[in-house]
Amino acid sequence: MSLLFIVRYASHDEWKEIFKRKDPDLDIEFWPNVKDNKAVTFAVCWNHPKNLLDSYPNLQAVSSLGAGVNHLIDDEWLAPDIPIVRVITPSLKKQMADYILNAVLNYRNNTLKYAFQKKDAKWDRHKPVPKADCTVGIMGLGELGQEAARLLVKNGYKVNGWSRTAKDIEGVTSYTEHELDAFLAATNIPVCLLPLTGKTEGILDLELFKKLKKPSYVINAGRGSHLVEEDLIYALDTGQLSGACLDVFENEPLPPAHVFWNRPNITVTPHIAAQTDPDEGAELILENYKRALSGMKLLNEVDRKQEY
Amino acid sequence: MSLLFIVRYASHDEWKEIFKRKDPDLDIEFWPNVKDNKAVTFAVCWNHPKNLLDSYPNLQAVSSLGAGVNHLIDDEWLAPDIPIVRVITPSLKKQMADYILNAVLNYRNNTLKYAFQKKDAKWDRHKPVPKADCTVGIMGLGELGQEAARLLVKNGYKVNGWSRTAKDIEGVTSYTEHELDAFLAATNIPVCLLPLTGKTEGILDLELFKKLKKPSYVINAGRGSHLVEEDLIYALDTGQLSGACLDVFENEPLPPAHVFWNRPNITVTPHIAAQTDPDEGAELILENYKRALSGMKLLNEVDRKQEY
Repeated sequence: MSLLFIVRYASHDEWKEIFKRKDPDLDIEFWPNVKDNKAVTFAVCWNHPKNLLDSYPNLQAVSSLGAGVNHLIDDEWLAPDIPIVRVITPSLKKQMADYILNAVLNYRNNTLKYAFQKKDAKWDRHKPVPKADCTVGIMGLGELGQEAARLLVKNGYKVNGWSRTAKDIEGVTSYTEHELDAFLAATNIPVCLLPLTGKTEGILDLELFKKLKKPSYVINAGRGSHLVEEDLIYALDTGQLSGACLDVFENEPLPPAHVFWNRPNITVTPHIAAQTDPDEGAELILENYKRALSGMKLLNEVDRKQEY
Repeated sequence: MSLLFIVRYASHDEWKEIFKRKDPDLDIEFWPNVKDNKAVTFAVCWNHPKNLLDSYPNLQAVSSLGAGVNHLIDDEWLAPDIPIVRVITPSLKKQMADYILNAVLNYRNNTLKYAFQKKDAKWDRHKPVPKADCTVGIMGLGELGQEAARLLVKNGYKVNGWSRTAKDIEGVTSYTEHELDAFLAATNIPVCLLPLTGKTEGILDLELFKKLKKPSYVINAGRGSHLVEEDLIYALDTGQLSGACLDVFENEPLPPAHVFWNRPNITVTPHIAAQTDPDEGAELILENYKRALSGMKLLNEVDRKQEY
């Protein structure tokens, strides 16, 4: 039995050292170096190649290395009966909540304007955006969304939440699936933390932007495909939106010629809002690896029908 | 009796409208248009000229338009027995606390690095600064400092406070006047919110930076003269400090040729951390104007011996 790590763009040495420290007897391999495909019982995937996961006949479960799982759900080479789990750790939730609070504060305090005028040595003052014009609406009240909502409430913001089923979170006004319009009409700053599914793809479009309470500002820390990129530009150009903060993009890395780079009212961060802490991540992956081996219930298992 | 507004760089029309709305009978004048110097009983000053305040023989009190009062304490033309008050409103305290939390988050999340690399369309990731390396030390636990300390505690930061006398604030480790070295050794991010006095001028110097816990990052939202500007540059160049966020400067506006503008690890904001809300400010000024007229105890009076 072995655990197979299929993760490009990560330090295999770092992960190996952490796994070995936690379990010196662990049989761990790093794709593409696999001795015996039949021995692989558990795979950890991020940016993994297509046409691969059907190579391991004894696979019992797969784990995403992060909170997102659409790369596994959409993978036709993964048999439909194999459970998918994901890595959501306490520090991941805190990072995401802090990222969102930071984005809201930067919008209110004109941080980016001051950063950009600095290179021209300009001492221009800009009016801050009052808190009263900053009702935040969290789209997706899963583990990450709930943590963000709670942090914003603690910081004195009015917070709405939009989720499939009603959620009872202190200080958060809950709107369910069919109440999207009412949610938008009461929200200045929508924050997308939705899973990427057939229902949520392209949800951040012009129609949605138009329904928001003004002034409006958009934060996307879900997946790039939640946003219709040309609609965002149109909404900024026509004054529907004051700006946007984006951590995720349709194509990553964001191509050098992409229009977003040159827009002063779009904040771009390179998919860093929430990064799995290797130590915490390895702990959770090991736990699920052992649970899968002994047929126990897995932690953070995804509902493949709901796609999250 | 009249209230005299000696404030350059503010909209007199806006303030007049607000004062008149609150008290239609108020006799308010805007320097330099003063009908009768003898009628002036109360003056509101910000960036006021020297050699002026002795022109009003019946002055009963003066108010700063903001939290800082050194421009009044240092004014030789203001008789030593005239009480000085200042304007600290609830929204001023909240703005300042939010500014500091924002500065800490920007440091942790590399906001400025991402903003600057955006113009070069660069998708480079930087390691976030963990919360464990971000013990914040508030220098000056007056009304603004206490509000900031409480907000940081609420957001899960370890917080130290340094003040003349011990302060009992939940979650804040209090250090008094003679415990500065111990305070610095336990602090990564000193935040200067001190009043500017003979004792505190130039306190942010190389000696202080060297005593900080590493990594260190400095926030100055007190007064420009708290900081020895060349020491900051030296400390950044020699790696004593990772960066700084400055809202106040020795000379404001910061001159276009100043070295701070070109330093990527110095955040510059144009003295905007906390701006008096005109409506709240006018309310407090009116209250003190009336109290002075009837000889009542003034609100927010400054101890002229302690210089704050």
